[in-house]
Amino acid sequence: MKILIMGIDGYLGWSLSLYLAGRDHEIGGADAYLRRKWVSEMGSQSGIPIKSMFERRKAFKDAFGKELWFRKGNFRDYPFVCECFRDFKPDAIVHLGEMPSAAYSMIDAEHCNFTMVNNLVGTLNILHAMREICPETHLIKLGTMGEYGTPNIDIPEGFFTIDYHGRRDTLPFPKQAGSLYHLSKVHDSNNLIFACKIWGLTATDIQQGPVFGTKIELMATDERLFTRFDFDECFGTCLNRYCAQAVTGHPLTPFGKGFQKRGFLPLKDSMQCFTLAIEKPPKSGEYRTLNQFEGIYSVTELAKKIKRIGKEIGLNVDIRNLENPRKEMEEHYYNPEHRNLIELGYKPSHDMENTIKEILIDLKKYKDRILTEVLIPCIRWDGTRRKVNFLKA
Amino acid sequence: MKILIMGIDGYLGWSLSLYLAGRDHEIGGADAYLRRKWVSEMGSQSGIPIKSMFERRKAFKDAFGKELWFRKGNFRDYPFVCECFRDFKPDAIVHLGEMPSAAYSMIDAEHCNFTMVNNLVGTLNILHAMREICPETHLIKLGTMGEYGTPNIDIPEGFFTIDYHGRRDTLPFPKQAGSLYHLSKVHDSNNLIFACKIWGLTATDIQQGPVFGTKIELMATDERLFTRFDFDECFGTCLNRYCAQAVTGHPLTPFGKGFQKRGFLPLKDSMQCFTLAIEKPPKSGEYRTLNQFEGIYSVTELAKKIKRIGKEIGLNVDIRNLENPRKEMEEHYYNPEHRNLIELGYKPSHDMENTIKEILIDLKKYKDRILTEVLIPCIRWDGTRRKVNFLKA
Repeated sequence: MKILIMGIDGYLGWSLSLYLAGRDHEIGGADAYLRRKWVSEMGSQSGIPIKSMFERRKAFKDAFGKELWFRKGNFRDYPFVCECFRDFKPDAIVHLGEMPSAAYSMIDAEHCNFTMVNNLVGTLNILHAMREICPETHLIKLGTMGEYGTPNIDIPEGFFTIDYHGRRDTLPFPKQAGSLYHLSKVHDSNNLIFACKIWGLTATDIQQGPVFGTKIELMATDERLFTRFDFDECFGTCLNRYCAQAVTGHPLTPFGKGFQKRGFLPLKDSMQCFTLAIEKPPKSGEYRTLNQFEGIYSVTELAKKIKRIGKEIGLNVDIRNLENPRKEMEEHYYNPEHRNLIELGYKPSHDMENTIKEILIDLKKYKDRILTEVLIPCIRWDGTRRKVNFLKA
Repeated sequence: MKILIMGIDGYLGWSLSLYLAGRDHEIGGADAYLRRKWVSEMGSQSGIPIKSMFERRKAFKDAFGKELWFRKGNFRDYPFVCECFRDFKPDAIVHLGEMPSAAYSMIDAEHCNFTMVNNLVGTLNILHAMREICPETHLIKLGTMGEYGTPNIDIPEGFFTIDYHGRRDTLPFPKQAGSLYHLSKVHDSNNLIFACKIWGLTATDIQQGPVFGTKIELMATDERLFTRFDFDECFGTCLNRYCAQAVTGHPLTPFGKGFQKRGFLPLKDSMQCFTLAIEKPPKSGEYRTLNQFEGIYSVTELAKKIKRIGKEIGLNVDIRNLENPRKEMEEHYYNPEHRNLIELGYKPSHDMENTIKEILIDLKKYKDRILTEVLIPCIRWDGTRRKVNFLKA
């Protein structure tokens, strides 16, 4: 299959290009290197050293014996998106090219507007270009489990059937996202549903939980194939950031009470799930939602696991809860369904302990790259920017 | 009360400034005159002749003996929005300053992106500026009944309580809008709910149906006080456009089967409702939804009324259904609740016949201004732009 990865230079995008190339797909990619820019705006860098796209493409060719098709450009630029689709002629498009940070979107009006415009316009350009150029192509769009928020009822996969005042309908599940970034993805999902309905486009909307891990197998033999690993308050997700804290002797920092639950998954499982979504597309003209995670954990549960596994490899890990910079429920019901991927054949690795150990061992080699000054958040949901404090035990 | 009207130069904005000034409120306004620009882009003009803001402000002073505070500028410009709030110090902000046309948003990628960015960024700037400058101010934001779409169950006002898998929660009603413009307002509503929750802002989200009418009483004495009246395929709404067709001898043009139902209201009722929303604000920190319409009518029902009333004043009116340029249900269940405004004291005028007669008589005077070449739509939901055809009877 010819698969075009929008946002190929990112954490998931780069990993996925290798994973799919390893399954003999023909890979193309586009990126404007914005992730590198945003992370450096945060005063941070990738914990694992990564190569430029120029060197990545050479390493890709050495690994797979074929070229990686690539175009540099911005998805907010409609002619650029059209050019990618016309030139590469993809069978499937994987859209991973959005600004992915809740905290970044909450900095101020400027960052909020950038997030909304970048994410919505990028996705709308992809939808319009598909309509114009390749309406039969399958779009796999990365959303987030965070779109749903934490309602007091079960979370279905996209749609649910309800009775109300004696009548019945099947409707999109109401979403109550917890940040302006998460809202941008809610808006994307609504736009995507509409585009499938009106233009007959075919799409899989992946509601993914936070991903953790440093690598997939194919990266083991060549350092030039490494993918990025972020730990700053904006681009490091919870479990990855805890691991970065653990190897630098920094306490792990659950926010508030620390009973927030989310659906997490290892990088390897994420690759498996994306591949299933790509290789087993929905019917033509269908909009399909996949809730993509391996298991549900509270952030304190994760911190405790890391503390225990850290001890096994000689790390002395402390846990100290922080004042919560976000406005969110710290104790809540959480029961999202996730049957669709299992039905497509997803085999959850159920191997979080070993993945955490692998992350800690990998990061120890590069612990000088982990800048401890970015490990404590300062972006607050109230619009101010002040380092948060540790809570009294 | 000091009331700032964002989008004061538009159909509703200008009318509301007069209506509220007539109730002794102190009025400020901001506008970038985009509505005039968009209508001229459509090759059209206001059916009723309107004055420039410069002359409008002189007429306003003559009518009320006080100045109309005004700033020209774009709401996508955050410093401009902040300056308006700092200088005018409003007690209430009425946000009518969005691009309001479904068809305009469906022209192509460029118009879609303009609609999304203009509407979302404008509203987000207002929310951020409120948080920063006047968090106690009440925002009255114009949404649309079209946000809800036409579900097969009753439509509540914003939220509903449901049982699902044996648990209960109160959630935002799922919205299934029928155009990219309507989606931009769905996104606005979701952003507004979030801003109220996170920043404690106070807002009324008005889900209004199509408004019809040429004037309110205060305009009767001075032509310089007239408000605009659009009839082109983008900015003329159904009933107003039918009246423009009637006075030029053009057949009235329901789309498709013509059984589409919507909640309509006269301009005078719209003014009454906005005033109630402003003068009776919700509790501080509350997000409130008002479904704003007088009654539910099918578009064919309206066409028939206009035909009958036209006859009374000597117009020979024909009805000829058009191929539907939209993708929408042409026969459907429709039962939106609208108790909240009634509870605030709204007295529906229930006087559609007289309002239609008034529109027809007013428009007859200016029938040379109605450009018949813009009365048949060409913007189609499938992304093409070709004049639609009359259906065989």
